Amino acid sequence: MRKLNYQRLHGWIEEVGGIGATPEGGVRRIAGTEADKHGRDKVVSWMRDIGLQVEIDRIGNIFGTLAGETGAAPIMIGSHIDTVGNGGKLDGPYGVLAGLEIAASFRDAKETPSRPLTVAIFTNEEGVRFQPDMMGSLVHAGGLDLETALTSHDRDGVTLAEALVNTGYAGEMACGAVTPHAFLELHIEQGPILEAEKKSIGVVEGVQGIFWTGFTISGQANHAGTTPMHLRRDAGFTASRIAVEARRIANEIEGQVATIGQIDLKPNLINVVAGSAYVTVDLRNADADRLQIAQNKLEAIVTDIAEAEGVTFTAEELVRFDPVAFDPAIVQTIEEITKESKLKYRRMTSGAGHDAQMMARICPTAMIFVPSINGVSHNPKEATAKEDLEAGLEVLSRTVDRLLQS
Amino acid sequence: MRKLNYQRLHGWIEEVGGIGATPEGGVRRIAGTEADKHGRDKVVSWMRDIGLQVEIDRIGNIFGTLAGETGAAPIMIGSHIDTVGNGGKLDGPYGVLAGLEIAASFRDAKETPSRPLTVAIFTNEEGVRFQPDMMGSLVHAGGLDLETALTSHDRDGVTLAEALVNTGYAGEMACGAVTPHAFLELHIEQGPILEAEKKSIGVVEGVQGIFWTGFTISGQANHAGTTPMHLRRDAGFTASRIAVEARRIANEIEGQVATIGQIDLKPNLINVVAGSAYVTVDLRNADADRLQIAQNKLEAIVTDIAEAEGVTFTAEELVRFDPVAFDPAIVQTIEEITKESKLKYRRMTSGAGHDAQMMARICPTAMIFVPSINGVSHNPKEATAKEDLEAGLEVLSRTVDRLLQS
Repeated sequence: MRKLNYQRLHGWIEEVGGIGATPEGGVRRIAGTEADKHGRDKVVSWMRDIGLQVEIDRIGNIFGTLAGETGAAPIMIGSHIDTVGNGGKLDGPYGVLAGLEIAASFRDAKETPSRPLTVAIFTNEEGVRFQPDMMGSLVHAGGLDLETALTSHDRDGVTLAEALVNTGYAGEMACGAVTPHAFLELHIEQGPILEAEKKSIGVVEGVQGIFWTGFTISGQANHAGTTPMHLRRDAGFTASRIAVEARRIANEIEGQVATIGQIDLKPNLINVVAGSAYVTVDLRNADADRLQIAQNKLEAIVTDIAEAEGVTFTAEELVRFDPVAFDPAIVQTIEEITKESKLKYRRMTSGAGHDAQMMARICPTAMIFVPSINGVSHNPKEATAKEDLEAGLEVLSRTVDRLLQS
Repeated sequence: MRKLNYQRLHGWIEEVGGIGATPEGGVRRIAGTEADKHGRDKVVSWMRDIGLQVEIDRIGNIFGTLAGETGAAPIMIGSHIDTVGNGGKLDGPYGVLAGLEIAASFRDAKETPSRPLTVAIFTNEEGVRFQPDMMGSLVHAGGLDLETALTSHDRDGVTLAEALVNTGYAGEMACGAVTPHAFLELHIEQGPILEAEKKSIGVVEGVQGIFWTGFTISGQANHAGTTPMHLRRDAGFTASRIAVEARRIANEIEGQVATIGQIDLKPNLINVVAGSAYVTVDLRNADADRLQIAQNKLEAIVTDIAEAEGVTFTAEELVRFDPVAFDPAIVQTIEEITKESKLKYRRMTSGAGHDAQMMARICPTAMIFVPSINGVSHNPKEATAKEDLEAGLEVLSRTVDRLLQS
């Protein structure tokens, strides 16, 4: 009977977290850099130590496969190991290394799974240096053509193709060659919900849809002292009203969040009425209809606000991802396992994007979340209690067992 | 009988406006720079051509005096010739050159005024390179000590004292040596009111008081997707609510304006709830009590908004100028002259700061405004119709005559 080695997982997380370590205690391992290469080299060496067969595809995705009793489609467990500019040790590596620990536990027990088990490292999930994010899984799932992805370039004009060659991860396997029997991703929540509700496990039913809109507002720059209120066409006031109304829309619609994270006024001076403004609105909802209602309300209210202030605006759709629903049967299985393990859990949707949402296009997929301390992620302070990391691994491992029986 | 030479005034405005000309058709003649020196040299040469006695004080203020029948305190007409980074030809030079034209008209007619007539050019009214603004008149009026002013420095560490020496305007006359019998300043409105009401002359009763407050808001940076609305402490939303409430306060109080010209969010990213924000509020009112009421309301509402959002804030008082009332008798005189000249006018307060508000501390003072086309100033497009420029000169000249009789 195979046993999980929790200490091995913690050790791996620490060791990978030391590659690209920043002075603040964080990690900087941006996709396609030397640090990313060193991180990948390390994990690939462990894959080989365990006896996995390692294959690299043309977008640099890494697949380490433990052979099964049959050559049927594998159970794939994956995530990413690239990080943001000063991120933490868990976002990405936790899911990859948990998969690796499960493979290692089969090897330690000299057990062979009924079908292959593949541990996947997807290229450039974070999208810091090359866009879009979740690139490797998106290409694997056929949502972005390989050539477009390879020719995406950083600010210095270096293409991803060049970065892959330079780091030794320009593989030869065709993208999307493997269609898994099922895909699982274990990840930190990156939000405050599980902690606030004292739950150990998030059973993830899907990923919120995301609509991003950038509004460019044109008013009239005016002197703050000499321009009476009724003669103003204030782009800054308009931007602020949009932010206040977006909050109202979020509060009116179930499961809706709205964020105005960016406001740029021009000239942005204390004594000048802003002549122009740029403001972004990030709307998310797990329900496609509700998300569309929120977007419609937003557009209507921006139109009203602009008319009232006598300003004009243009709206640019920056991102539009519809919500993703994970496989109900696997979600159900994870929920049952969590209950059997007497772990406190809740069903939830992911507010962040993950490789799993791309894989859901091609195979039955689900995710498991563990709590983030203070809800913090993309930050050196990103952390999760050890017992929660271990609970997540246990649930993932038992889910793999259940899927191997199916 | 002396006669005004309107063409000479227009010619001087154009000639000075050509010094420091920018590609956009504007003027860049920042205080203490080579361009400012060339502008000053030009006007001083005209002062000398007209036969004015030129004196420079230790802060670089220039006084060109036409001798009177007696050595009594002079009627002083003044403004500034320094500009903002890309300003117009009128803000400042119009008032100086109109005074010069009046002096020239006395000389042309070989008339001697009953008391001296002094044309003043105050140093650094705009405050672009050295702070505070209105510096020369403020030092002259005793509101700022000379040493503090001379040691103010630009971003490169150059002091105003050094800039005055370099440009040849470090004079020897003691600051404040001359207390005028009366001070007059003719200026463009820099706002839209006169144009909107089809008036040629603004009879300026005083200058609005100005309170500037900078609010630094500390919330919690969070992921835009994973953080439910009720768990957010959004510094950006707080800043936006302050902007919306400041507009409400302005609309509730007579004569009140409120401007939120600057908003800086951190990290200012589309998908991150802002962790901190800086927002400025510029409140102005000609009535001191009403201005204080607006400030009190603002502080109360910011406290409420912050508490509701669970953020903290600090408020920094950046500027606090109480309203300035000009001399009622001179204001009355200007109004009568404007009526007699059958010019359309309105009494008004200045929304912008001017040298006259500093001079009002030491002598009877008033201002005359002419319309700004589209209300635009501090901009290459700053302009005033020729007939309005001429009407302003006429009213100023007749006001000088009336004051010379008193």
